[in-house]
Amino acid sequence: MTSQDLNSLKVSRDRLLTDLHYTCQWGTGKRWGENTTDTGMRRLALSDTDKQARDWFVETTKAAGCTVTIDAMGNIFAVRPGKRSGPPTFAGSHLDTQPSGGRYDGILGVHAAVEMLHVLNENHIETEFPIGVVNWTNEEGARFPISMVSSGVWAGQIPLATAHDLVEVTPPRTETLSAALARIGYNGPTEVSHTAIPMAAHFELHIEQGPILESWNRKIGIVTAVQAYRWFTLDVRGRDAHTGTTPLSARADALLTAAKMILHSHRIATKLGCVASTGILTLEPGSTNTIPGHVRFSLDIRARNDGILDKAEEALRRDFAVIAAGEDVGGLNDGATPGKACQVEWRTDSVSSEIDFHPDCIKCVTESAEGVFGAQAKELTAEMVSGAGHDSVYTSKVCPTSMIFIPCKNGVSHNPEEYSTPEDCALGAQVLLGAVLRYDRLRAE
Amino acid sequence: MTSQDLNSLKVSRDRLLTDLHYTCQWGTGKRWGENTTDTGMRRLALSDTDKQARDWFVETTKAAGCTVTIDAMGNIFAVRPGKRSGPPTFAGSHLDTQPSGGRYDGILGVHAAVEMLHVLNENHIETEFPIGVVNWTNEEGARFPISMVSSGVWAGQIPLATAHDLVEVTPPRTETLSAALARIGYNGPTEVSHTAIPMAAHFELHIEQGPILESWNRKIGIVTAVQAYRWFTLDVRGRDAHTGTTPLSARADALLTAAKMILHSHRIATKLGCVASTGILTLEPGSTNTIPGHVRFSLDIRARNDGILDKAEEALRRDFAVIAAGEDVGGLNDGATPGKACQVEWRTDSVSSEIDFHPDCIKCVTESAEGVFGAQAKELTAEMVSGAGHDSVYTSKVCPTSMIFIPCKNGVSHNPEEYSTPEDCALGAQVLLGAVLRYDRLRAE
Ligand SMILES: NC(=O)NCCC(=O)O
Ligand SMILES: NC(=O)NCCC(=O)O
Repeated sequence: MTSQDLNSLKVSRDRLLTDLHYTCQWGTGKRWGENTTDTGMRRLALSDTDKQARDWFVETTKAAGCTVTIDAMGNIFAVRPGKRSGPPTFAGSHLDTQPSGGRYDGILGVHAAVEMLHVLNENHIETEFPIGVVNWTNEEGARFPISMVSSGVWAGQIPLATAHDLVEVTPPRTETLSAALARIGYNGPTEVSHTAIPMAAHFELHIEQGPILESWNRKIGIVTAVQAYRWFTLDVRGRDAHTGTTPLSARADALLTAAKMILHSHRIATKLGCVASTGILTLEPGSTNTIPGHVRFSLDIRARNDGILDKAEEALRRDFAVIAAGEDVGGLNDGATPGKACQVEWRTDSVSSEIDFHPDCIKCVTESAEGVFGAQAKELTAEMVSGAGHDSVYTSKVCPTSMIFIPCKNGVSHNPEEYSTPEDCALGAQVLLGAVLRYDRLRAE
Repeated sequence: MTSQDLNSLKVSRDRLLTDLHYTCQWGTGKRWGENTTDTGMRRLALSDTDKQARDWFVETTKAAGCTVTIDAMGNIFAVRPGKRSGPPTFAGSHLDTQPSGGRYDGILGVHAAVEMLHVLNENHIETEFPIGVVNWTNEEGARFPISMVSSGVWAGQIPLATAHDLVEVTPPRTETLSAALARIGYNGPTEVSHTAIPMAAHFELHIEQGPILESWNRKIGIVTAVQAYRWFTLDVRGRDAHTGTTPLSARADALLTAAKMILHSHRIATKLGCVASTGILTLEPGSTNTIPGHVRFSLDIRARNDGILDKAEEALRRDFAVIAAGEDVGGLNDGATPGKACQVEWRTDSVSSEIDFHPDCIKCVTESAEGVFGAQAKELTAEMVSGAGHDSVYTSKVCPTSMIFIPCKNGVSHNPEEYSTPEDCALGAQVLLGAVLRYDRLRAE
């Protein structure tokens, strides 16, 4: 195929969006507007609704002429044959969502890849090598608390047993990942490995999930890198005591201590120019008139590079120990009676280093965008760094990888109101199609 | 009966403790030591285990010759006849516990009152007026979030419908108080009212739940008053957003905001010489990589008098509004990027004013303690104010009331390790018996 031929292949905006909203019947979340599709999503990884979306994915890709393989993490690989054999060039993302997420995060990337299959079929295109579409399991890390865990196992970066033994952090907090796989019948027979299921390259279309493209007035983000991040679970232990009879000075108040830590994490993040966030917090025993003796909370810290993140983690470990001891850091105790010491314990849940994407893939995305936008490409696209993690982080460790971003309204994601226009979704899918086909041609050259 | 006769009546320490630990088979909680009885309790109001303890109470008091009445809040009144008719002089407390409470809070007060019946029976004592033993429902406010709610309804201070409609705050957070009453069969036919079931007086033995008696080296606290307290539920609403892509300045972080409020409540409490505590905190959506858009937490504030409490509430309402707006109060924002505004909403769950107990009842307790300790009474007893609320707060609004405290180890309560020695429990029961009989005699005079 010439570049001309490539540019003449067009994705169908209507088919893309109709299919996307069709599959959002499984796990429909909070309503926020009046249109049928004005709702968020709640489709936790390996839940019953995730199974329904997966079944659709398997049926649809099979009907589109693909061979489907499922591995022992429930990752689903659909492959459309090419002129010759060899590792397929993959596009894909994930169908799982946040507990209170939107219709685009991950879902768009899978649907754009499926749309690519439809375009290839209706145009009777025979690619040089096979083309694949992948749905990764539990990318969000919202149910099982390692994000991108299944691409991590596939890339040899996370042990399979670690992944299988993860316990859900969403209520009822009882099921392990392996039990959930078995329950919905997605514990596939294939080894979870980039050698068992090799990829020539991995492309991923995603909504930006942040405010950058919108503020720059760009249609396409050419993602060149992903920032570093780490997840921790912290346990603060004090002593259960009566709220009415226990003087402030006699308390070992685990919640007050955790509150100081959460505030302090924002001070450290501000100082070091990174971000820190707590998304989960549970406490015991949970009674209005009992000072909590135990608080557990998540800590998510992110920075442009591992060096800054090292500094942030170091500062937080040092200062949290001081805060737990009831001593002052940065005036937190000013005016508030210091209580007795609590204990603090850190558990590292996951570490995702800063990564750079592959120049060949970035080039294919750039050229594809030029094909779509022509002379306007410079004004309508921009290179950028991803603030969020994606399965592309792990695939990049073992095969050439890059990503394409489209803007989302107000930069909002992990929120039912997450929204990208049909035009932008189609533009992203169009750039994805062009990038995959360019990479396929590049390999043949 | 002469004072001499009164002093010769002795409670049985062994029977008291054996019975108390026997009923702690229903709702046994966390183990903390090696002895059989070294466990806490989890016997939430109107749970299955509370029903078992109630059944025991009904059977035991009936077997002791009492007539048992159950009202529409599940309060249980057992009455032993006297020489003449008239409102009984009551002793009692509550059999419900905290979710992670101890074996003495409330339970001791009920058992000491039952022990009183045994002593009267084995000594063939005929009192002047009837003597009653009462078990109040949901005193803790741990399951249904108004403490002492059933004595509150009985005293005409809380509408029955308000109480019946309370929804449990402990998981699964679905059952109402009235549904729970029906489920365990304790929705009695009798009107909940101090006119339908009048009391001549109400005496309550309780563990102190704080460190005062222990630090003063006293055996008996003669309680003359109870401090004021108020319970609130606060809702903080921001915006769900992605932890990785949302800059600190673009966030409306409900948890960071709540953390500042919790810390600030301790500053205000320190300044005004009162206490503030948060025992429950829940958040949504609850995902490591989503900034929580909604946090709900309880706030319990207490002070020696209503004037101080008014000041505290006023300061907190004013300052929480400023904190929610993202602005600074007392340097909380120092060094931490201020985000966007959140909304804060207050709900008042319960208000318990400062109260003073009745001089006649206090006198009966004082004289009873003198009967027990003789010349040592001055060194072994002390007048004091209760830091915790008790059903006696509400009974005091409609009948003469007072309380007796005994020390508890390290002042710890609302904790599985709550402990009072068998000697102190028996001393408390002995003073209770003497106080009730003195009041009965006082009425006849
Ligand atoms: N894209 C996305 O939200 N992935 C989840 C991993 C992360 O928290 O960055
Ligand atoms: N005694 C006791 O713990 N009662 C519950 C009411 C309160 O919180 O003070």
